[in-house]
Amino acid sequence: MIGLTNYAGVMESLMNSAEEKQPSSPLTNSWAKKQESSKSQKPNGVGGFVLVHAGAGYHSESKAKEYKHVCKRACQRAVDQLKAGALAVEAVAAALVELEDSPFTNAGMGSNLNLSGEIECDASIMDGKSLHFGAVGALSGIRNPVMVANRLLSEAQKGKLSAGRIPPCFLVGRGAHDWAVSHGIPPCPSDKMATKFSLSAYKRNKRKMELAEKMDTGHNQTKKRRQSSENENGSGCLDTVGAVVVDLEGNVAAAVSSGGLAMKHPGRVGQAAHYGCGCWAENACNMNSYSTAVSTSGCGEHLIRTMLARECSAAMQSEDAHQALLEAMQNKFISEITHFCLLWEIKPFVLYGFLFLSNLCSGCFIVLNLCMDILEFLWSHTTESMCVGYMSAQDSKAKTHISRLPPGTVPGQSLAIEGGVCRLMGVVE
Amino acid sequence: MIGLTNYAGVMESLMNSAEEKQPSSPLTNSWAKKQESSKSQKPNGVGGFVLVHAGAGYHSESKAKEYKHVCKRACQRAVDQLKAGALAVEAVAAALVELEDSPFTNAGMGSNLNLSGEIECDASIMDGKSLHFGAVGALSGIRNPVMVANRLLSEAQKGKLSAGRIPPCFLVGRGAHDWAVSHGIPPCPSDKMATKFSLSAYKRNKRKMELAEKMDTGHNQTKKRRQSSENENGSGCLDTVGAVVVDLEGNVAAAVSSGGLAMKHPGRVGQAAHYGCGCWAENACNMNSYSTAVSTSGCGEHLIRTMLARECSAAMQSEDAHQALLEAMQNKFISEITHFCLLWEIKPFVLYGFLFLSNLCSGCFIVLNLCMDILEFLWSHTTESMCVGYMSAQDSKAKTHISRLPPGTVPGQSLAIEGGVCRLMGVVE
Repeated sequence: MIGLTNYAGVMESLMNSAEEKQPSSPLTNSWAKKQESSKSQKPNGVGGFVLVHAGAGYHSESKAKEYKHVCKRACQRAVDQLKAGALAVEAVAAALVELEDSPFTNAGMGSNLNLSGEIECDASIMDGKSLHFGAVGALSGIRNPVMVANRLLSEAQKGKLSAGRIPPCFLVGRGAHDWAVSHGIPPCPSDKMATKFSLSAYKRNKRKMELAEKMDTGHNQTKKRRQSSENENGSGCLDTVGAVVVDLEGNVAAAVSSGGLAMKHPGRVGQAAHYGCGCWAENACNMNSYSTAVSTSGCGEHLIRTMLARECSAAMQSEDAHQALLEAMQNKFISEITHFCLLWEIKPFVLYGFLFLSNLCSGCFIVLNLCMDILEFLWSHTTESMCVGYMSAQDSKAKTHISRLPPGTVPGQSLAIEGGVCRLMGVVE
Repeated sequence: MIGLTNYAGVMESLMNSAEEKQPSSPLTNSWAKKQESSKSQKPNGVGGFVLVHAGAGYHSESKAKEYKHVCKRACQRAVDQLKAGALAVEAVAAALVELEDSPFTNAGMGSNLNLSGEIECDASIMDGKSLHFGAVGALSGIRNPVMVANRLLSEAQKGKLSAGRIPPCFLVGRGAHDWAVSHGIPPCPSDKMATKFSLSAYKRNKRKMELAEKMDTGHNQTKKRRQSSENENGSGCLDTVGAVVVDLEGNVAAAVSSGGLAMKHPGRVGQAAHYGCGCWAENACNMNSYSTAVSTSGCGEHLIRTMLARECSAAMQSEDAHQALLEAMQNKFISEITHFCLLWEIKPFVLYGFLFLSNLCSGCFIVLNLCMDILEFLWSHTTESMCVGYMSAQDSKAKTHISRLPPGTVPGQSLAIEGGVCRLMGVVE
């Protein structure tokens, strides 16, 4: 029987300064429970669970229903797969397909158009059981990029190709498209992937760009660039969608998918396709006490440098997750990024061990952390809002929630963290 | 005055087992000297230095002269740049251009051909001063891929594009080609980049592949794949070339370039284009006592997972480099990779803090480590051979060397480490 006995109360924290005291952590409490729990019972397996998000950015009130609905459907699809016996990696791919198929997300259908008015997508997937990874970058003409990433992962698991050739784990552009089609994934004309909304956003962005360039004519080129502060990729647009899953056997998996920045240069590949950056999943083993799965979203160029997904996962491996997050982030993540900030003359701020780049890098992430039968899940964002959905294999329907920064706070300078804990009873004997 | 007072004696170690005792390290000695040195003098700058390598793999005796010659030319080109006042990042790009232009290396001209008989290159470059990074993947029709990576880096340093768009740091495929051409880098027809040698290797590989597939006909597909052990990408082929540079001001930079695996699928991107994997460069600063630059070479699919360049650099930051290498590699690198090895049922072996994957991942790397006026440089390989060249701004010509595993040792199971130390006197007042 799968028993979902407790969703811990959601905690929300908002701070404007790194200097203020650290808030009490949901992790500290939950890890205390975890320690007690692990003494009393040792189930052989756990119930399935999925957590999804619809991308970093701004989710308008008028479309709130749509965002929640797509998160709900994505959760349902993953849980359907889990109940049918699928492994975490298959279930997480199924959730991503639903997120990609929505015209409201910036992934798959309705993705941002690039400078040439075309859709090019990035996606990656990681299996916590085998640690295999598959990724595609700047992929056009395929409705569900995550399916190609997943197929790369599963093909690599079969071993070497003929004549000892090593199977690829990362394909881009036309080559990725042709590989997908040759592996039975149907092509989809690029114009069928654009939506009324993405096309009108493209036209609007193009006009703004032309206007900005016109206004700058005659100015010094370098000066022009630095003074230009209006960001087409800011509020109003969404970024990488993602999901993290635990299957009935306790395996974890994570995946991300993105249409990338609006008006990006053709061929640009963002963090969603980068190993260690977009997603990370790692089953518990001799060296890692906890199974973790992480999925991130935000500005690719900056998130690539942080390797955020991998760093989050590594920090969660300690017995005291709160302390570990602080220590790990302090020792390597924060110090590294502070280094970048100093060099680039930007102001970082730190909360709860995580660091965000003020006015530069807004993003969000979701994390699953599993120890024995206690599953911890959390999401965090510096963007205006974040829409998440979560569901256990025992639930009849998914819970959804749009987390928003309070009025008056500045996206990129404020941080929201929310999360919960649930107990998933053993099902596999 | 630039004074090059000491090239420490080369040390070579070969072991077949992780269990044997650790060899004494050139680093330990040199770091002791470094400590003494830093007490006695504090120059404001250091002389320039370059270290290059012609790729992991096998360098035949018959072509030894050619390999040495290209390394020599690459060093000379970088030093010419340094003497003309160029920064490290420009000098390292100049060295790479020379390595790419050689028909004997697997980069730029004469690169391995992919499954479709085309050349697609990966390259990346990192500036230790700004920590900016530029990369291209699966790039066709450009003679010097490193020039595109370098241009991406320098364009990103200028700040945002019109309308606040974030400049790309990683471009692939056709988009990368078009961006390069629009930025004044001339196109080069793919067929002009193939050489007699690369074309005949392609035909030979194609025949072997067809034969292997013919022989396997009728066998179970999965079984067929696993049993196939002959590796087209093994001995006889070379991989990613690279260089690391210190300029007259003490800034470091690193770069890599690769034609990728022979018979790879079109669109496949390897470690040479991945952040943290192919190259890493980081100037000394408040948080890092030492300037380090690393360039790696080897099988992309496996090296991506190790993030070798970044891990090497991080390990070199400690005051006791030997101890740091051991600790860092033991704590995260080795444990992580051992994890992969356990999962994939392969045997790792460990020496000197670095880990190589037996029969799976052969590779090499070069490292520069600078503290005050003492520069340490080392190279290491598990491949049959490695051709390196090095030169200071004061030298009249470069020194070159082909390091080989001794007869009877097995590539991928034995490791050679060599290196030296030199004192570069301050030149910038």
